[in-house]
Amino acid sequence: MAETRYAIGVDFGTNSVRALIVDVETGEEVATAVHDYTRGEHGVISDPDNPHVARQDPADYHEGLEASISGALSMARSRQGFAPQRVVGIGVDTTGSTPIPVNAAGVPLCMTPAFAGNLNAMAWLWKDHSGMDEAERITRIASDLRPNYLQRCGGTYSSEWFFSKIWHCLNTDPAVFDAAHSWVEFCDYIPALLVGNTDPIRMKRSVCAAGHKAMYAADWGGLPDAEFLSALDPRIGALRPRLYDHADSSDVRAGGLCPEWAERLGLPSGIAVAVGAFDAHLGGVGAGVKLGTLVKIIGTSTCDITIASRDSDAANIPGVCGVVDGSVVPGYWGIEAGQSAVGDIFNWFVTEVCEAGPDMHDTLTRRAADLRPGQSGLLALDWNNGNRTILVDARLTGLLLGQTLHTTRAEIYRTLIEATAFGAHTILNRLREYGVPIEQTIACGGIAEKNALLMQIYADVDGQPISVADSSQTCALGAAIFGAVAAGAHPNTESAQKSMAAGVSATYRPDPDRHKTYRELHGLYMRLHDCFGIAGHADALGDVMKSLLQIKQRVEG
Amino acid sequence: MAETRYAIGVDFGTNSVRALIVDVETGEEVATAVHDYTRGEHGVISDPDNPHVARQDPADYHEGLEASISGALSMARSRQGFAPQRVVGIGVDTTGSTPIPVNAAGVPLCMTPAFAGNLNAMAWLWKDHSGMDEAERITRIASDLRPNYLQRCGGTYSSEWFFSKIWHCLNTDPAVFDAAHSWVEFCDYIPALLVGNTDPIRMKRSVCAAGHKAMYAADWGGLPDAEFLSALDPRIGALRPRLYDHADSSDVRAGGLCPEWAERLGLPSGIAVAVGAFDAHLGGVGAGVKLGTLVKIIGTSTCDITIASRDSDAANIPGVCGVVDGSVVPGYWGIEAGQSAVGDIFNWFVTEVCEAGPDMHDTLTRRAADLRPGQSGLLALDWNNGNRTILVDARLTGLLLGQTLHTTRAEIYRTLIEATAFGAHTILNRLREYGVPIEQTIACGGIAEKNALLMQIYADVDGQPISVADSSQTCALGAAIFGAVAAGAHPNTESAQKSMAAGVSATYRPDPDRHKTYRELHGLYMRLHDCFGIAGHADALGDVMKSLLQIKQRVEG
Repeated sequence: MAETRYAIGVDFGTNSVRALIVDVETGEEVATAVHDYTRGEHGVISDPDNPHVARQDPADYHEGLEASISGALSMARSRQGFAPQRVVGIGVDTTGSTPIPVNAAGVPLCMTPAFAGNLNAMAWLWKDHSGMDEAERITRIASDLRPNYLQRCGGTYSSEWFFSKIWHCLNTDPAVFDAAHSWVEFCDYIPALLVGNTDPIRMKRSVCAAGHKAMYAADWGGLPDAEFLSALDPRIGALRPRLYDHADSSDVRAGGLCPEWAERLGLPSGIAVAVGAFDAHLGGVGAGVKLGTLVKIIGTSTCDITIASRDSDAANIPGVCGVVDGSVVPGYWGIEAGQSAVGDIFNWFVTEVCEAGPDMHDTLTRRAADLRPGQSGLLALDWNNGNRTILVDARLTGLLLGQTLHTTRAEIYRTLIEATAFGAHTILNRLREYGVPIEQTIACGGIAEKNALLMQIYADVDGQPISVADSSQTCALGAAIFGAVAAGAHPNTESAQKSMAAGVSATYRPDPDRHKTYRELHGLYMRLHDCFGIAGHADALGDVMKSLLQIKQRVEG
Repeated sequence: MAETRYAIGVDFGTNSVRALIVDVETGEEVATAVHDYTRGEHGVISDPDNPHVARQDPADYHEGLEASISGALSMARSRQGFAPQRVVGIGVDTTGSTPIPVNAAGVPLCMTPAFAGNLNAMAWLWKDHSGMDEAERITRIASDLRPNYLQRCGGTYSSEWFFSKIWHCLNTDPAVFDAAHSWVEFCDYIPALLVGNTDPIRMKRSVCAAGHKAMYAADWGGLPDAEFLSALDPRIGALRPRLYDHADSSDVRAGGLCPEWAERLGLPSGIAVAVGAFDAHLGGVGAGVKLGTLVKIIGTSTCDITIASRDSDAANIPGVCGVVDGSVVPGYWGIEAGQSAVGDIFNWFVTEVCEAGPDMHDTLTRRAADLRPGQSGLLALDWNNGNRTILVDARLTGLLLGQTLHTTRAEIYRTLIEATAFGAHTILNRLREYGVPIEQTIACGGIAEKNALLMQIYADVDGQPISVADSSQTCALGAAIFGAVAAGAHPNTESAQKSMAAGVSATYRPDPDRHKTYRELHGLYMRLHDCFGIAGHADALGDVMKSLLQIKQRVEG
């Protein structure tokens, strides 16, 4: 029997980076270490004058890369049979879109003396919304000139994305823009660093970042053309040749680990480093996404990841955050959808309305578990932070309807959980309409692991099973899977997933009676959804409350 | 100068009865005493098997009548110049519709041995809803046979009203129905008792009770005709001759105080006792209602009272609780409207959502006072207990819209106050549309006296002044005014009001800027109101949230 081989997945989150060492044959998670960023507020650097600004110092990335991998390796050393020499590949995922302005050598501008300490010369973190105006203008210009560019990213270009940030930099700090030889996504920067090839023109670029955030698609020749970019601003058009023409899936080898980083990490020089991708997408891979299975990462918000065969109608699904060839599993459409607030809504209710501490979640969950679907007579829309899928409208807000003089706090809490379940179900329905039927959902994240009531409600609303992934670090696991694939340890991603992806620790199955009630409630939810969410939609809602009361009466017998 | 004369007003509430002694020339409130009912739960007797049942034992009325008047008299005796011999008249108001089944002598059946302790033989308190089904059937049958009967009571006959209760008694306890020679309103029973004429056929009946709750109107010959009542049930038709043909305003003398009660109370025999009426209506009189002035009694719910000239279109106002000739000030249409929950909504939020004690009202009011109209981005419908005016629909429920992840408890509290202000303003607009323009509102009740924020919001929403009555007992004061009028101490009600009615202790004036914002918000409120409140109404609401956000942005500058 051959010696055991290992792959390392490195998962760069918003506040910390995790390295995970995985057995490439069994998927066993051998060792892991987390490094918290030290700069700013848990790694996020704010501008006191502009609440929309969120930046990161790439020095945190450098330190975190070394610390997390070294930490995991030192933990793994205590394990019999492990040796760093048996690591065959490294995969990387990061937040995104988190573009970094770099010089011709690929050095982040803030790491050069001229721009040290300049926030605009740092990494523009995914949740930086300072480019809101630019995003609206990009949407408008693309709608006029290149409507196809918007077709696979929900019809609306976001302030969180690549070109909004670059353009905003040009408009507010032209010195940084002018000094930037190119802009590099965080998930491209780390593999480039590891392989010792940070030349922005020659480095490998992630199709996940390119396709979901930069309007890249092979069928229109890669990134948006210079004419379109010049319509934003001629100087953006002029930047076009210093970006890239091709992007790759994460099964592709970005290169071999360079001697410098091999030495810093104590790993063999030359081992495979995979092309990077975004955290949620690799979380989907790590959780076992496949045709018919949706992976749902449930946290403060949710990210939904699935795949569809290339001959499906998936590329035309309106209102999802993106459909990109190869962004999840190579050879398939990668589909990203999501809800802009889930855990955040429950946290809002507990913190701002109940004015209580986090323990209140347990109390309310227990009390809410005693209620039956429809019993409260309440219905809510889960739009406290806008609607990401399928309406793609950040300017929607929450709604709670059906209150009487007897409505309790626990009833409202349950109703908010149900609202997020209806939002999730609406995404499933949209996928189904476009030939991407989902038969099973696998959930990851703290809420999925801890809140059985929420999981059961999701199953009852969907009318189909929802499982919990038995790994708490599916993103890093997905990265390790690609490290293994890039190293040739598996012939392709699907075969690597069969060996390495997480299993499920629990499966929640729908109750037919509860599902029946929730079908009715979801119908009413969609009445509100369409009436409040679609401008110009004509509907009358006069019977909604009465229908809720009738259901309530029937349920209470 | 003539000797000072006094009138007594007796105000029978849900849990207690108050007697008030008033100087008939100056309106000075000389003495008052309150007697709490002792039976049931604060006077309300429930049926553990039926939550809709709410009854009272007339023995509480007898005891309370004597105790409250005696108490007030003994307090007044310490006052120089007062003597019981100077009391010239007594007026009475009660809750209603609170009908009592009586024998041929006018004795409540529960006070006869055969029916002692039988809840159905007691007074059927105003808030008894056991006749819900009967109410619906009365509405349906009247719509078919006598649509005019419903025209002056909001188009819907309520379970709280006279015939719903009588019919429900027939359907559930025919022995009581059969034994009842007649049914007498609480507000008719007390004056009848005082004048020693309880013969149900000969006693004076209140046009306020008859018109607002029993479909009485002089123009169609008094009470509903026997043919219509027989369509409900022939036995109700057979009851018709044992009810009454004529009802009077409260300026009419029901009779002279009988020797028995004169002795029990220590008052002169033969002094005037006025025809009774309902509490809110006499509260309107006591607070100084007149043409162009609306009196608003703000408590857990509100009751709105105004008058209109007989040549106005008032009789055709849809959606008010009732328009009755002479039910408030003789010679005018008396108009009753109201909101089914106001203080109850704030209490619900504090108790059920905040899970806090009553002190929280002060805290939230203080915090809410720091907010500006439109700042929260929230909008609510004040329908937690249905909508009494102008939709007349008990099966509507609350709605809160516009929540984000930052919405605070105080913002919601203020939004609920604003929602009740919008509901109140909607009533003013409806009156205006039908030629009953209101230029000033006078508010009574604890909330009006204590909550300056609410009063200011009401003024800002209405765009016109709202004042607080400087009496905390306007109902008893109104009753005393009619005691004086019935005694001939004043030539008519208006002249008695000029001398005796309450003044105002404070006036809140609208701020033009706040009013402007509230005009916009009320427009959005009406969009929701019509869309959610009117079955079959067609509207699209897709822009409501965005309009709220725009207002919010503008307000925040």
